[in-house]
Amino acid sequence: MGRLVVRLKDIADRTGFSVNTVSLALRDSPRIPPETRQVIQAAAEALNYLPNQVAKSLVSRETRTIGLVLTDITNPILTQVAQAIELRLAEQGYSTLFATSNNDHAEEKKVIEMFRSRQVDGMLIYPRSHRELDHIRRLRQAGYPLVLLVADPDAGVDAVCVDERRGAYKAARHLIDLGHSRIGLIDGASARGNHEKREGYQQALSEAGIGVDDALTIEPRGHSLLAGHGAMAELAARGNGMTALLAGTDSLALGALRWTQQHGLRVPEDLAIVGFDNIEFAEHAATPLTSVDYAVGRVTELAVQRLIDLIQAPDLLPEPQVTLIEPELLVRESTIGR
Amino acid sequence: MGRLVVRLKDIADRTGFSVNTVSLALRDSPRIPPETRQVIQAAAEALNYLPNQVAKSLVSRETRTIGLVLTDITNPILTQVAQAIELRLAEQGYSTLFATSNNDHAEEKKVIEMFRSRQVDGMLIYPRSHRELDHIRRLRQAGYPLVLLVADPDAGVDAVCVDERRGAYKAARHLIDLGHSRIGLIDGASARGNHEKREGYQQALSEAGIGVDDALTIEPRGHSLLAGHGAMAELAARGNGMTALLAGTDSLALGALRWTQQHGLRVPEDLAIVGFDNIEFAEHAATPLTSVDYAVGRVTELAVQRLIDLIQAPDLLPEPQVTLIEPELLVRESTIGR
Repeated sequence: MGRLVVRLKDIADRTGFSVNTVSLALRDSPRIPPETRQVIQAAAEALNYLPNQVAKSLVSRETRTIGLVLTDITNPILTQVAQAIELRLAEQGYSTLFATSNNDHAEEKKVIEMFRSRQVDGMLIYPRSHRELDHIRRLRQAGYPLVLLVADPDAGVDAVCVDERRGAYKAARHLIDLGHSRIGLIDGASARGNHEKREGYQQALSEAGIGVDDALTIEPRGHSLLAGHGAMAELAARGNGMTALLAGTDSLALGALRWTQQHGLRVPEDLAIVGFDNIEFAEHAATPLTSVDYAVGRVTELAVQRLIDLIQAPDLLPEPQVTLIEPELLVRESTIGR
Repeated sequence: MGRLVVRLKDIADRTGFSVNTVSLALRDSPRIPPETRQVIQAAAEALNYLPNQVAKSLVSRETRTIGLVLTDITNPILTQVAQAIELRLAEQGYSTLFATSNNDHAEEKKVIEMFRSRQVDGMLIYPRSHRELDHIRRLRQAGYPLVLLVADPDAGVDAVCVDERRGAYKAARHLIDLGHSRIGLIDGASARGNHEKREGYQQALSEAGIGVDDALTIEPRGHSLLAGHGAMAELAARGNGMTALLAGTDSLALGALRWTQQHGLRVPEDLAIVGFDNIEFAEHAATPLTSVDYAVGRVTELAVQRLIDLIQAPDLLPEPQVTLIEPELLVRESTIGR
């Protein structure tokens, strides 16, 4: 008595177009000529085709709500991303719910579970560790739409994010080009298995024939300004000949900058400083901070678009796709003086 | 055949204790002697009393989830509050979902509705306007547990918050005591009907016999550092003889501080500056900022406790209760010099 479910493949067979063309035509994509769309849409109607999305919303009810998992709601760059995502999703008719893992793996699992039980249509996730993604990969494999906001090319999960390795590379390269070879690194992410920034830093050094010296790197106690202040104090106490500093976030860099002010060091003459993320406080600091721009606009645009594509995928989810955005280095007075 | 629902009143009638005592005894409050608790609990059992809370979780299922509505997720003091609330609720076994109204009244209604449809057990709300609370009051009247994080003593809704009027009063008073009489005010909240800070400022001036001069007050375009910078530029261009400035948030104050640095004004000699909220960036600014402390710890402790009391209220919700916390003024170099 015929198949219960009509698939895109059936429409493709009947009309002679590819599955991809059929899929685009059913979503009324302008990439398909109007006549072709008409033919395909007529065939879909004749076959009683019910797009997955509609089927889903009939069965399990679509909620038009997206869950966004943050690692830390007090991190200014994450909240800037969160706001941009919320506004973009609102434009597309979706509401956004936020939750935070507070950088705890068990909490992360719990909030993802909470979002699922609340039946959000999809999730955008900042995972705590870029390496422990099993629980997220399982969801993806079960057909659940989600996009990571950090990249692990091997994760088997969609991701859209700034290329942190490349950003740190550019920052270190900039300092090397200015003649620095004793470059400190304050990076709190590495301890959680997020090695991108450290690797970019090491790559730039190694390309320039500069050895990596452990006396120049430190893990801060947290990511706050105060943590940067403490880490800078410790680096300075080591007598390591440091003339430049790369900090994993602007807050850490601003803490280090504050320490230099309190101890009579001139920036950049005595110490050049580069931050990461380009938060508003960085540009307007006592000494405007050179920083790697997070590209909030581009990241959120592509991440939201990808998530909506996954949600609206008429059949199986497409292959996972990782989009890395090359960040710009914004050079200001903290490295080049006035 | 007896009543279907046994109420606290029935247990009170049977045992001779007041409804209040019965309620406390059933929650095992140490304020009631153990023998009394035993008598009351035995009576409750004999009557097949089912606490509202349990009844509710049987009927509509308790979700152990709280919704927190923020006006703006990029405001550092709000995210600090959000994090503290999340941690406190986690300690009590509740998860927290966040949503933002982006300071839009329609959005605010929408996210509150979204939380209700997601069946959160209660809500903590930063309303956009302290004066337009009808939609929230109606929920309260329907028995829905919620606590505002701003105060309108006449709202008929529970509230726990910093006394912003008193905070602004203290800040202005401090500047007056230092000899200032031309005190500027940058306050972005007033335009949304949140007049607390402006009123505190005006009260301090009026007590000191200083007239309020419109040439000294300005509404910034937003709440960011950049908005503070622009507002300061405009105030300076007016030639109003301003020698001190009170800003409604630390971000606005830091923007003004940045403007003074760029234009060669000394702080506090040429312009004394006070901010509001005491965010981390304020203490560690180029010139450490005098600021009104938000008392995050106290506010979140009492707000979470009140919300949980409302959720666990065995019968009708108690009368709404407004708790104002008097904020401290933290005096730093931006008003008193080194």
